[in-house]
Amino acid sequence: MTVTSKMAVIGAGSWGTTFAKVAADAATRVDGHGDIALWARRESVADEINSSHTNSQYLGDIELPQSIRATGDLQEALAGADVVVLAVPAQTLRAQLRQMRDAISPDTVVISLMKGLERGTDARMSEVIAEELGLEDAQIVVVSGPNLAMEIAREEPTASVVACSDEEVATRIASAVSAPYFRPYTNSDVAGVEIGGIVKNVIALAVGICDGLGMGDNTKASVITRGLAETTRLAIALGGQLETMAGLAGLGDLVATCSSPLSRNRTAGRLLGENLSAVEVGEAMTQTAEGMKSAHAVLDLARRNDVEMPIAEAVVGVLDGRLTIEGMARQLLGRDLKSETNHGRESD
Amino acid sequence: MTVTSKMAVIGAGSWGTTFAKVAADAATRVDGHGDIALWARRESVADEINSSHTNSQYLGDIELPQSIRATGDLQEALAGADVVVLAVPAQTLRAQLRQMRDAISPDTVVISLMKGLERGTDARMSEVIAEELGLEDAQIVVVSGPNLAMEIAREEPTASVVACSDEEVATRIASAVSAPYFRPYTNSDVAGVEIGGIVKNVIALAVGICDGLGMGDNTKASVITRGLAETTRLAIALGGQLETMAGLAGLGDLVATCSSPLSRNRTAGRLLGENLSAVEVGEAMTQTAEGMKSAHAVLDLARRNDVEMPIAEAVVGVLDGRLTIEGMARQLLGRDLKSETNHGRESD
Repeated sequence: MTVTSKMAVIGAGSWGTTFAKVAADAATRVDGHGDIALWARRESVADEINSSHTNSQYLGDIELPQSIRATGDLQEALAGADVVVLAVPAQTLRAQLRQMRDAISPDTVVISLMKGLERGTDARMSEVIAEELGLEDAQIVVVSGPNLAMEIAREEPTASVVACSDEEVATRIASAVSAPYFRPYTNSDVAGVEIGGIVKNVIALAVGICDGLGMGDNTKASVITRGLAETTRLAIALGGQLETMAGLAGLGDLVATCSSPLSRNRTAGRLLGENLSAVEVGEAMTQTAEGMKSAHAVLDLARRNDVEMPIAEAVVGVLDGRLTIEGMARQLLGRDLKSETNHGRESD
Repeated sequence: MTVTSKMAVIGAGSWGTTFAKVAADAATRVDGHGDIALWARRESVADEINSSHTNSQYLGDIELPQSIRATGDLQEALAGADVVVLAVPAQTLRAQLRQMRDAISPDTVVISLMKGLERGTDARMSEVIAEELGLEDAQIVVVSGPNLAMEIAREEPTASVVACSDEEVATRIASAVSAPYFRPYTNSDVAGVEIGGIVKNVIALAVGICDGLGMGDNTKASVITRGLAETTRLAIALGGQLETMAGLAGLGDLVATCSSPLSRNRTAGRLLGENLSAVEVGEAMTQTAEGMKSAHAVLDLARRNDVEMPIAEAVVGVLDGRLTIEGMARQLLGRDLKSETNHGRESD
C-alpha cells in the first residue's frame, strides 16, 4: 500500500473494529498517519467511536486510534477506498454487497475477514464476493488465523495468514496490516484458509459439547485431532493444501478457538452439552455462534464432495434435535479398534 | 493376548499405575480376571496398592482393581510375564533394564509408556530397550497419545495409539488394553509416535512460558502450530510419518498436554515464564517435568539431523540461562513477514 491508499472497513463488530485498529496502527508505523474509514450499521456505534474512541459493546474500554473515522453512511465509508475490508455476518454478505456494488471501483482489493458458508448456495465468502462484485481472484484477499479479536485489540502478540491467489497482492496487504502486535504471513491457498476458518467453528461446537458433558482434555484433544483431519479432507477436496491445514489458519485457528473461554462457538457448544436446545442456545447468546449457522452448509458441501465428516455430522444431528448429546458422545467415541491412519485419513 | 497371558508393569507412578488399571479392566471385560503385576520402587507404595487399592501419592482416592498385585520385588513382578510394560523415568531406563535382563524371556513383548530421550546417547526409549534386551523390533511396542493419566484413571473417555513395526503385534496389544474408557488405535510408525511424545514436552514448556508471561490464546495456538511443524520435521528426518504427527500421538498429545492444568511440563514452563531459574523450578515441583530433561537431547538430535527447531532452541536457551524470557518472546514472535508455507515447513 502506498501512503495515499485508503481503506474502508465494513462492519464494526469485534473483529472489524479490531482490524481497523490494526490497519491504523500499521499505517502509523509506516508514515505517521492512516486513512481508515469504519462503517457501523448503527449510528450510535459510529458516534461512540468518533467521540470517545471506544466500541464498548464489543471491545470494552479499549482505546481505538484517533485516525479511525467511523460512519453510519455506507457510501461515505466507501468513497475513494482502494482497499475494502468486509466484516459483516456471513448470511448478510450478499445483500450487503449489492448495496455497495456501485461505490466500489473495478481495481479495488477486497479483504474478507468473514468465516462462514452462505446457506442455500454453500458458497465461501470469497466466492460470494467474486460473484457479486465481478472481481478477479487476484483482487480478493482472505485474512484468517488464531485471531481472537479481543486479544488482538489488547495488543497481545498474534500471527495471522493473509491469503490471495496472487502472492504479490498478499504481500502488499500483509505489509499494510503489519502492526507490532500483529504479524501476518502470506499464503496463496485461499480455499484452504477459508475452509479452516469455517469448519473450526463446527469443531469448536463439538469441543464445547464435550465441555458441557464434563469430559476432560484427553477427549477434547482427540476431537480436535479428528476434527482437523476431517477439515483437511474437505479442504483438499475443494483444492486446498495439506500445509495450509497444518498451519496457522488450520491447526492454529482451531486450537485458539477450542482453547479460549472467549470463543462464542465453544460457549454455544457447552450450552448444547448442558442439554439446551439449539433454539434455547440462540436465545441465551448475545453474539452469533457462526458454527451453528454454517454447520448444515459444511455438511452439505462435504456430502456433495464425497467427504466423510463424522464430527460435523454429529453436531448437525444435535442441532437438529435428531441426536441426543449422549448419543453424540457414543457416536464419537464408540468406534471399533482400528488403525490410526485409517482412522485419521479415510473413514475416521 | 490369550487368557493365560501375564503382564508385569514396571513403575508405579501415575501413568504406570493407571495403565495397570486399564489392563486389569480390559482383562475383566474379556474373561473375568486378569493377571497384572505392578512393581513399585518403594515397598510402602506396593503395600498401599495391595491393602487399600489406592496409590494416593499419584492418583488420590481412585480405586484400583483388586486384580492388580503390587510388589517391591522386581524378580517377583517379572516372573512368568509374557508382556512387560515399562513406565520408569527415561534417564533411569538403561540401569533398570540391566537389572531385569535375566528375568525377561526371549519371546517377551515389551511396551514402553515412556516419553523422553536418553541424555548422552540421545536414544529413544525403544532404542534403549532393543539394545539392552536384544529384542527384535516386532517385540517392542510404544503406547502414546492424548493420555493425561489422571483423566484415564477417572475413566474419562480417552483414545490412544499402540505402535509396533509388526501390525499384528500392535493389534494384539491394542486388544489387550482396550477398556470401555480407553480406546487404542494401532500404528506401525514407532519412531513418529515416540518423537511426538518426546518433543511435545518441550513445546509444552514453551507454551507454559507464554502462560507465565501472560500471553493469550492466539500466541499459544501459534506456538503449538509452529511446535508441531518443527516436531514433524524432526520425526520425518528420523523415518517417521507426516500422518502420525497429524494424529493422536502427534497433534492429539501436544494439544492435550498444552491445554491441561494437570501437565507438569506446562506448569514448569509457567514457572520459568514467571522468571524462576531452571534450578528453582526443579525444586518447586514434586514430579519430574520430562521436557526439562529431554530438551537438550531433542536439540542435539535435531542438529545432528540438520533439522531447524527454533522453539526447542529457545527453550534450551532459557533452561541454560543464556536467553531471558523476554528475549525468547522476541525471538519467537519477532520474525520478518514471509510466506506461511516457508514459515511452517522450512525455516519456520
